[in-house]
Amino acid sequence: MKIIAIDSSGLVASVAVATEESVIAEYSVNYKKTHSQTLLPMLDEIRSMTELDLKTVDAIAVASGPGSFTGLRIGSSTAKGLALALDKPIIEVPTVDALAMNMWGCPGIVCPIMDARRHQVYTGFFEFGEDDELVVIKERFAEDIETVVGMLNDIGRSVTFLGDGVEVSKDAIKRCAGVPYRFAPPHLARQRAGSLAFLAIKYYKQGRFVDSSAHKPEYLRKSQAEREHDRNSVDDGR
Amino acid sequence: MKIIAIDSSGLVASVAVATEESVIAEYSVNYKKTHSQTLLPMLDEIRSMTELDLKTVDAIAVASGPGSFTGLRIGSSTAKGLALALDKPIIEVPTVDALAMNMWGCPGIVCPIMDARRHQVYTGFFEFGEDDELVVIKERFAEDIETVVGMLNDIGRSVTFLGDGVEVSKDAIKRCAGVPYRFAPPHLARQRAGSLAFLAIKYYKQGRFVDSSAHKPEYLRKSQAEREHDRNSVDDGR
Repeated sequence: MKIIAIDSSGLVASVAVATEESVIAEYSVNYKKTHSQTLLPMLDEIRSMTELDLKTVDAIAVASGPGSFTGLRIGSSTAKGLALALDKPIIEVPTVDALAMNMWGCPGIVCPIMDARRHQVYTGFFEFGEDDELVVIKERFAEDIETVVGMLNDIGRSVTFLGDGVEVSKDAIKRCAGVPYRFAPPHLARQRAGSLAFLAIKYYKQGRFVDSSAHKPEYLRKSQAEREHDRNSVDDGR
Repeated sequence: MKIIAIDSSGLVASVAVATEESVIAEYSVNYKKTHSQTLLPMLDEIRSMTELDLKTVDAIAVASGPGSFTGLRIGSSTAKGLALALDKPIIEVPTVDALAMNMWGCPGIVCPIMDARRHQVYTGFFEFGEDDELVVIKERFAEDIETVVGMLNDIGRSVTFLGDGVEVSKDAIKRCAGVPYRFAPPHLARQRAGSLAFLAIKYYKQGRFVDSSAHKPEYLRKSQAEREHDRNSVDDGR
């Protein structure tokens, strides 16, 4: 089978075309441009370079959240548009699970952390179990980094951190960690559509995909607009 | 510092722009087109996408071999042209060392294998030591896969295989291996200019770089043309 994979959940925009056997093309950009400027041109670039007939694609995989609200919406809109036009399903892959997959084969706990602003990170705890399958120890959640490190201390195993939340969390990790830890190097530290594709193909074979109309991003938290609306409703006595 | 990294040593063409902190852009294609058709357009694509002023680049990193003779020549020519025009040094990174870097943090032996034709593979043995630094256990060499697996059996540790030589070597590995082994998944199994860049920046800081005129690829073996020339010389009694 052949899929298109899209990740625009964080600072990186990443697209890939992949089969079970190989990543045919992968293109990632970690630059200040907004994803609305980059994602489709990048996808068109790899489509053209690999002479890909879009009709031969079996599914569209997308990083379904958590992450940047705008980033997720751009990724989901792109995936929905493609899936609708091609009449193919969408494979929703949680962003932190795909990030963890960068560290395939590493011992100990893998802990992706994404900057969620408001002193929080999006994270989850993973390990590679028997047959090097990704095992979810604790599913994606939003929490302040000190609490996250406390939970990891309770588990008591060594941890590999990665993701765009590392930069803002380093000091807190150094201060609070009671277990051995390390940070992934740059080439493994950010979203890669190739990693997402690998996990997506596994999901697809387990029947874990949805119709394009059913897909929506999973934000985990309320958006700023919703929070402000809620606060105003309370203020108004509503 | 900022570098351009190029790997066209195997079936994959891969280019990246990277700093110490991050991979700004990475683009890899594993498709039947020849590298002479893909490599420069790919580089121009990421240059344009990241609004890169080439004059701000500190060095050009290239997969210096072993690998496909034609692929290495295209990569080296491109690197030399860039380095000469920009008056910057070239960082030569052995192909298998860069491949090993894909598996950063993995326990046991990392063994990249590239198809060298004529029943041989290009390979080397690596591990991640203290501080997760890449340690070269046995430097790059060309050998038949049965002998390589025999050497790994003698070392007696678990092995992770990766690279485009896995496909043609799987049966021999299964037949000969006397140690636990596994194969890297697709998203980690092939050349990535991002991995090469990470190692290249380390080399640069150790002063390991050369002038553009001094660089040449390291083939490890004689080319087919040279072998035929040698054979003809013997046949002629020369």
